[in-house]
Amino acid sequence: MEAARIAAELGALLEGGRVSTGESDLTLHSEDLTFHRPHRPDVVAFASTTEDVRRVLAFADQHRIPVIPFGAGSSLEGHVIPVAGGISLDLRGLDRIAAIRPAELTVTAGAGVTRLALERRLGRHGLFFPVDPGADASLGGMAATDAAGTMTARYGKMRQQVLALEAVLPGGQVIRTGSRAAKTSAGYDTTGLLVGSEGTLGVITELTLRVRGIPEAQAVVRATFPDVAAACRASCQIVAAGLEALRVELLDEWEVAALNAYAETGFPPGALLFVEVAGSAAGVEDELAEVTAIVGEAGATTMAYERDPTRRAQLWRARHEIFFAEKAMAPGKSSLSTDVCVPLEELEGVLAGSRAAIEGLGLTGGISAHAADGNVHVGLLVDPDDAEEMGRVARLTTELVDHALAHGGTCSGEHGIGLGKIGALEREHGDQIELMRSIKATFDPHGVMNPGKIFSEEAADARPA
Amino acid sequence: MEAARIAAELGALLEGGRVSTGESDLTLHSEDLTFHRPHRPDVVAFASTTEDVRRVLAFADQHRIPVIPFGAGSSLEGHVIPVAGGISLDLRGLDRIAAIRPAELTVTAGAGVTRLALERRLGRHGLFFPVDPGADASLGGMAATDAAGTMTARYGKMRQQVLALEAVLPGGQVIRTGSRAAKTSAGYDTTGLLVGSEGTLGVITELTLRVRGIPEAQAVVRATFPDVAAACRASCQIVAAGLEALRVELLDEWEVAALNAYAETGFPPGALLFVEVAGSAAGVEDELAEVTAIVGEAGATTMAYERDPTRRAQLWRARHEIFFAEKAMAPGKSSLSTDVCVPLEELEGVLAGSRAAIEGLGLTGGISAHAADGNVHVGLLVDPDDAEEMGRVARLTTELVDHALAHGGTCSGEHGIGLGKIGALEREHGDQIELMRSIKATFDPHGVMNPGKIFSEEAADARPA
Repeated sequence: MEAARIAAELGALLEGGRVSTGESDLTLHSEDLTFHRPHRPDVVAFASTTEDVRRVLAFADQHRIPVIPFGAGSSLEGHVIPVAGGISLDLRGLDRIAAIRPAELTVTAGAGVTRLALERRLGRHGLFFPVDPGADASLGGMAATDAAGTMTARYGKMRQQVLALEAVLPGGQVIRTGSRAAKTSAGYDTTGLLVGSEGTLGVITELTLRVRGIPEAQAVVRATFPDVAAACRASCQIVAAGLEALRVELLDEWEVAALNAYAETGFPPGALLFVEVAGSAAGVEDELAEVTAIVGEAGATTMAYERDPTRRAQLWRARHEIFFAEKAMAPGKSSLSTDVCVPLEELEGVLAGSRAAIEGLGLTGGISAHAADGNVHVGLLVDPDDAEEMGRVARLTTELVDHALAHGGTCSGEHGIGLGKIGALEREHGDQIELMRSIKATFDPHGVMNPGKIFSEEAADARPA
Repeated sequence: MEAARIAAELGALLEGGRVSTGESDLTLHSEDLTFHRPHRPDVVAFASTTEDVRRVLAFADQHRIPVIPFGAGSSLEGHVIPVAGGISLDLRGLDRIAAIRPAELTVTAGAGVTRLALERRLGRHGLFFPVDPGADASLGGMAATDAAGTMTARYGKMRQQVLALEAVLPGGQVIRTGSRAAKTSAGYDTTGLLVGSEGTLGVITELTLRVRGIPEAQAVVRATFPDVAAACRASCQIVAAGLEALRVELLDEWEVAALNAYAETGFPPGALLFVEVAGSAAGVEDELAEVTAIVGEAGATTMAYERDPTRRAQLWRARHEIFFAEKAMAPGKSSLSTDVCVPLEELEGVLAGSRAAIEGLGLTGGISAHAADGNVHVGLLVDPDDAEEMGRVARLTTELVDHALAHGGTCSGEHGIGLGKIGALEREHGDQIELMRSIKATFDPHGVMNPGKIFSEEAADARPA
């Protein structure tokens, strides 16, 4: 079906939403923040209700038109790129926070609510939501990619926070999974299956999430080490000591320099470890003392403490800007952020191997880690039009993944598969690809949901008819 | 196929395991601990390796013979009862703990390892595993039913602890899901789908689990209240205050009397709340003070503190014996333990409604709750051969479920669906039954895995040919 006809028919169908084929809308929905090659959708449908989403999915299934759910466009593996054209389904209009329930620590919100919008509303009730990817992502997108962030070792990823979903399946059936109860054993975990399905099984329209009370006290230790290995040993010892720190973030020398240049943070040069502890006032002081002892023994050269909420917030804001700080190190280049996750016993080796691989391949970039859960990020600055450089980048990501897999880890701790890790998923879970494809076919028999993601050679089956 | 031929052919196939058609083996594998009507398997296959499991599943799929995975037989909704005959696949021989890794807080163990066997081994390393259903269940069974226990509000159910699985699919394919890394975004969450699938999608043979360091300090407040409502208000306020207590357990007056009679606990009469806090020594004292203030304000008539590890262990051992304490209140009767889970805002009403329903229907039983996550258990003593009484019991469980569903809750917080909650699942997730059935068909096209569980009218499709 031609774009103009899709737009006309969809436009007539939508309840409160609208459809666009304007240049800027098509461009905005053709790309993410990263190096992945843009590809335009045929149309952009802006949904404002679940009913809008239902109508779009019924229409698309009937006419075999790809649908690509779009939240904030901040995913990192090309998830939102309409590689087979079709309808980019923009969900930012589903931006209502239906309920905040402080007495039971739950919130119900539309898929288009962003994490910072939620944070502002929760803060008034003394609550917070512990999943914090760098960008101001939408909650629906965070669920679809099973997002994580700096507090995952303590609280878990999105999947652990999502109690219930409203979702629309291909064809237009609306289902409600889970419940407001804190736990359930009622049948298969369809909630957890939709979380992390990257828009390939259906469209999440509303989420009920577990939230937390802001701890009485929090404090950050910021420690500089002569090298990444020492910082890594400190973080592993913090975990092994049973300290359930709120955050344990590691930055290598390159990232520290990038942050200092971009955000004027003024950190001493070296590898940096931020450790945040939280709890009662007395508990925090106890844990700070333990962290200080571990960090000192591991060879920290400087240590600083932040107890003031404003200064702590500034610190974490700076840490969240690392993606943009990396980009600023090579203006005009594109950013490529890749992640692997390994058992803690293997973290030191993976960090060293990553730096050696960056240097060995003559690439530019830094390494950061959510160190308490062994999640390593390599941020590279690349020119997607330089085929030779992109060849070296591909060698690097392949080496990183193979190293992680050989040491009991996974090809992605939090960024997902999207376009960028399809081969990596096949290497990691080759024994399950057929099973995962059959799950996909169960939900989406006509292959219209976000084709070309997670699995190879699927886009061809679901081009607009 | 006849039992004798199944036994002969399977016996020749097994690598290290054995097959039995002996009376006592068939009887032991015909029932669980509860009132559900026993039904014998045709044979019992005792597996000793994953390869044994693979061979049994290939054979069963080829000949369309039901396979019922059997761990410790301690599930509560009839999960292990071979309602359509077939092969009860006993997994207790998979009892090897392959690795304990204190530095990364993971363990890899066979499906037949029991939780107490694991606990003993972990304790030597200063570690513990936070899922503690009452019985000494097998880890494979705990994963298959997504078991929970007294520490779930703090640490989550089995699904949150399982990092990786080895599982055998119907037909005999062995798959490995997840990894040893603390988190992953590598494709669909097949790990989480197998967890809680109640043996209907495949057989879990090995698990890699997240474990925890034993906290430096722990202490229990034991408070008696004039009624359940006051105890409930105290527990809800503990949650709303953001205290992440290790355990918040509520027992009504009937359960307190049952425990005193069975375990000679000597608790004062009344409704009882146990609140356990854990952390650093100073943190624990801070939290104890907060809990004491909340509990006192809610109207506690007596309060006692337990800091001594041995006395705390005795206390929790007594709490774990509640199932047997209930049974001892009516010798000769069978036990029926049903659970629902509701949002905390609804807990007080559900507790009151449950007691009124027990009395109104002239039944005998008590109420307990994992109060911090709104999980209510009603333990009844019943005579399965008394049709009139069982009719009243059915009315009670229907009322409890409908009340929970009408108030944002779920038909089961931790016991699962099995045989006993099939109708309840249909009422709760009628919009998803078709989807769940198609997931089942994707994994198990011939319907041989634990037929008759979770879904209605399935047993008939998979009787021994």
